[in-house]
Amino acid sequence: MSRAIFLLAAPDQPGLVARFAGFFFDLGLNILDSSNHASRAEADGRRFYMRLSIDLDGLARPQALARLGESASRRSLEAAFGALAGELSASWSVGYDDKPEKVALLVTKESACLYDLVLRERQGELPCEIAMVISNHATLEPVAESFRLPFFALPVDKASKPEQEARVLSLLKQHHVTLVVLARYMQVLSDDFLQKAPPVINIHHGFLPAFQGARPYHQAFERGVKLIGATAHYATKDLDEGPILEQDVERVHHGMGPEELARIGRDVERVVLARAVRAHLERRVIVEGRRTIVL
Amino acid sequence: MSRAIFLLAAPDQPGLVARFAGFFFDLGLNILDSSNHASRAEADGRRFYMRLSIDLDGLARPQALARLGESASRRSLEAAFGALAGELSASWSVGYDDKPEKVALLVTKESACLYDLVLRERQGELPCEIAMVISNHATLEPVAESFRLPFFALPVDKASKPEQEARVLSLLKQHHVTLVVLARYMQVLSDDFLQKAPPVINIHHGFLPAFQGARPYHQAFERGVKLIGATAHYATKDLDEGPILEQDVERVHHGMGPEELARIGRDVERVVLARAVRAHLERRVIVEGRRTIVL
Amino acid sequence: MSRAIFLLAAPDQPGLVARFAGFFFDLGLNILDSSNHASRAEADGRRFYMRLSIDLDGLARPQALARLGESASRRSLEAAFGALAGELSASWSVGYDDKPEKVALLVTKESACLYDLVLRERQGELPCEIAMVISNHATLEPVAESFRLPFFALPVDKASKPEQEARVLSLLKQHHVTLVVLARYMQVLSDDFLQKAPPVINIHHGFLPAFQGARPYHQAFERGVKLIGATAHYATKDLDEGPILEQDVERVHHGMGPEELARIGRDVERVVLARAVRAHLERRVIVEGRRTIVL
Amino acid sequence: MSRAIFLLAAPDQPGLVARFAGFFFDLGLNILDSSNHASRAEADGRRFYMRLSIDLDGLARPQALARLGESASRRSLEAAFGALAGELSASWSVGYDDKPEKVALLVTKESACLYDLVLRERQGELPCEIAMVISNHATLEPVAESFRLPFFALPVDKASKPEQEARVLSLLKQHHVTLVVLARYMQVLSDDFLQKAPPVINIHHGFLPAFQGARPYHQAFERGVKLIGATAHYATKDLDEGPILEQDVERVHHGMGPEELARIGRDVERVVLARAVRAHLERRVIVEGRRTIVL
Repeated sequence: MSRAIFLLAAPDQPGLVARFAGFFFDLGLNILDSSNHASRAEADGRRFYMRLSIDLDGLARPQALARLGESASRRSLEAAFGALAGELSASWSVGYDDKPEKVALLVTKESACLYDLVLRERQGELPCEIAMVISNHATLEPVAESFRLPFFALPVDKASKPEQEARVLSLLKQHHVTLVVLARYMQVLSDDFLQKAPPVINIHHGFLPAFQGARPYHQAFERGVKLIGATAHYATKDLDEGPILEQDVERVHHGMGPEELARIGRDVERVVLARAVRAHLERRVIVEGRRTIVL
Repeated sequence: MSRAIFLLAAPDQPGLVARFAGFFFDLGLNILDSSNHASRAEADGRRFYMRLSIDLDGLARPQALARLGESASRRSLEAAFGALAGELSASWSVGYDDKPEKVALLVTKESACLYDLVLRERQGELPCEIAMVISNHATLEPVAESFRLPFFALPVDKASKPEQEARVLSLLKQHHVTLVVLARYMQVLSDDFLQKAPPVINIHHGFLPAFQGARPYHQAFERGVKLIGATAHYATKDLDEGPILEQDVERVHHGMGPEELARIGRDVERVVLARAVRAHLERRVIVEGRRTIVL
Repeated sequence: MSRAIFLLAAPDQPGLVARFAGFFFDLGLNILDSSNHASRAEADGRRFYMRLSIDLDGLARPQALARLGESASRRSLEAAFGALAGELSASWSVGYDDKPEKVALLVTKESACLYDLVLRERQGELPCEIAMVISNHATLEPVAESFRLPFFALPVDKASKPEQEARVLSLLKQHHVTLVVLARYMQVLSDDFLQKAPPVINIHHGFLPAFQGARPYHQAFERGVKLIGATAHYATKDLDEGPILEQDVERVHHGMGPEELARIGRDVERVVLARAVRAHLERRVIVEGRRTIVL
Repeated sequence: MSRAIFLLAAPDQPGLVARFAGFFFDLGLNILDSSNHASRAEADGRRFYMRLSIDLDGLARPQALARLGESASRRSLEAAFGALAGELSASWSVGYDDKPEKVALLVTKESACLYDLVLRERQGELPCEIAMVISNHATLEPVAESFRLPFFALPVDKASKPEQEARVLSLLKQHHVTLVVLARYMQVLSDDFLQKAPPVINIHHGFLPAFQGARPYHQAFERGVKLIGATAHYATKDLDEGPILEQDVERVHHGMGPEELARIGRDVERVVLARAVRAHLERRVIVEGRRTIVL
């Protein structure tokens, strides 16, 4: 069984659930799972969000063929859905479970998040293919090698940054990468890079919006907080300000210094990052301004 | 604006989302919120569950009138929906936000859950009307009185149990109670009572299925667990075996005796019970065998 | 059995545990419970903290009498302990379980934290006596009355603030209040008030240091966080910057507006506030700069 | 700086804190960290537990030499401490941070806990040396190899069990293993093995005492619980009944089948197991009947 996941956002109006669900019903395609949400009224009116998981088995049957102009390909399905979406001013995207996204992991020297994501992919927990590991240091090459993952060491300093980013972009393009995960990549990406790259998910080792910027565990220690957190968010040009995908915390106490906070924090980080990447790959996430809708 | 919430369960088949959503679309009624879920394939096939929150404002407009036989009352709406549900072998129920459910609280001597539920209702957190407090002791009468709630003290012992339960049932009926909450009611209700009464939600001070039966905190202390829990479930004839609505836990340590576990546990209990009662009142809960679907 | 709790802080040096524990051993007094902690090395050296819970039953026995100059009163015990503390440059305090602290609750219009603290005191969860409720509005008088608690309505505006604060201080003094709890008191206290008053614990409805200032739930909603928090801290002249006693969070999602965040937040607030007040009353908390040590 | 950790349990009596702390004070050795706990009164009286972390730097100085008979070796220190412990009927043990414990990991086919523990050891989070990996299958040999860890594949069936366990015991002995961790070892160890082996920590993928025995996630799914847990405990002859070291849970919902519960559960399992192993290695855990004291 092949499956498609449609994700859409539109100005709210009566009948949207019925019309989008009806589209697939009329084609004889089964909706395996669906969820939708309408935002509360705001200045620009209510917004409607929907995620539909569709069984594609019926795509070759007469009912679909008749309605899709005798060519029930995925392309025809997308064209027909696009027409409906256009009528309703909806933006949308689609993914197929037999075409997993290609993901690039950007790392520096810390291995915990790298191991975690690779092991989850291997265990079937993340519907994607990790296509490569890129780092500004050679440190983690043996880890990539032990999993037979292509590894590219691209050192970077202030002067070489534009050139290095260009090489990263070129690698992403060559390998058809559609998601970049910063698994503890200790460099700030330029606005230019972020505009040209596919979506980039970052893990911040603090409970944003608290403890932005560098050394969040030292900040947390100084402030004497009783919980340590981590935040996964999309990278944007405003550092640590991108839309939040997922957050979690763990309890700490006065006896713990910055290093122990970091140790506790690492456990939170990798679970939060993995949940965020998984939600993105399952096409559950819509970005709306500074916020995310996770369906 | 009046609002109706429809809740339904049916054997799964293609097109259910489209058909139920389409029903309201055709009447010109707006779906404010909807969610649905299909169970995994089981011996008796997949089951489909849906919750629809409907804006009733359109009920008096021509589009609805035309389709509901010129009498767009709630009764006509229910009749039309019932016909569709019948076609699709769906069981269903409906509630209206301007007709809040009437709730009876059954208590014994402990006041924490009683205070908690009443205060939440007063703050508008629970969409219901607490119609009365019934107890097998007079202890909590002053609490009920301070909130001007009718209080009925109905002592019970082994011999008088059938008679006492009959009086409780009669009170529930007189006041049109549709939900009973056991807010630390220290009596086991008979199977006969449970069959005649409206749904009964109980709070158990343990993480079921662990620590069934009496004195769960002592059991927990003896076993040396590191987390203390509470479980809200529907009462059934099999004690502590009813479908679970909600659970939560709190961390404890070796230094805490049974009384401290009880103190920590009380905080968990009242939050868990309040969440469960709220989910039920918002018509989010469908019971399926021993499990609940919370939409 | 009477019990004393000694709490102390001193510059670290070898032998402190032995010397403080030895002090009570030499008097024949049993240590029921003790804990200590040494901070990590800082600019001004390591700091040592200790909490000792002492059984006073032996205070009238020959061994204590002999060493305390034949007058084994609490005053003699304190004098002897003070001498040792002086030698070791320790700051210290002591409390007795048969002399519970007197607490004043300051409130405005919201009742949740007020009810919560009073009910906990009545259930024996908080070792204190709630001596009075002070408010800048009359709204919550019936609540205070239902528990037979003295209630003082002291309205305040910009002009009357110095005078109102003076009246509050005078009430605190008259009733020998040793702890003030701001149970959702919607006024900023002046630096002058804070210097003259006993310790003041405040509950902030956000996960500090995020969301300082007004309307934290609206801030949290705008930022799209996935967890809602609350922070109990000592009030200082720098608003929302006082040493943190306790924090906790609860998970929220995109579908929740500011009001629902507030509802979820209320549950976190009152549990966090109660834990903080309890820790203070049990003499577990030492303030060290911007941080707290909770023994 | 070398460090020793003493861990002890004794019948409670006045002065124990002072006497044990005084022992090190008299030797001129600094107590870096100490904690103690007295159980509540039980049939056999109160029990006292203490953990002392000692700076050994003073061991060669005159003060220690004089008191330890001019031979201030670790052996002399232990002899002197043992004499005091004997007087006070205390059972005790000691460990040194420059002699990390040797740990054997027993696994079957699942790699998550194996990777997790090895990576933590490599990152310095676990004060031990993982000496070997033993499995009843060859599946995980490449994982062990990628970390250059000795791997022993010792298949087992009903007939060969006594012989296989004997070989495991012999390996443990040869390599001076002092802790065995069952990192998802899918075999029940015999009572005979457990009596001869060093302490054995097991991870159970359920919230004990609920869901004992096989397939706990299927049991949890059937029962419709709302939280999934994991429990780390010492293995004893009574399966799943050993003293609990650590537990935690994660929230799940009706839409998750047994496989998704297993995926969520794996995250809980490895964190719980790592915390338990760390607590044991830091000599924080005392077993008292069916319970643990974690200092």
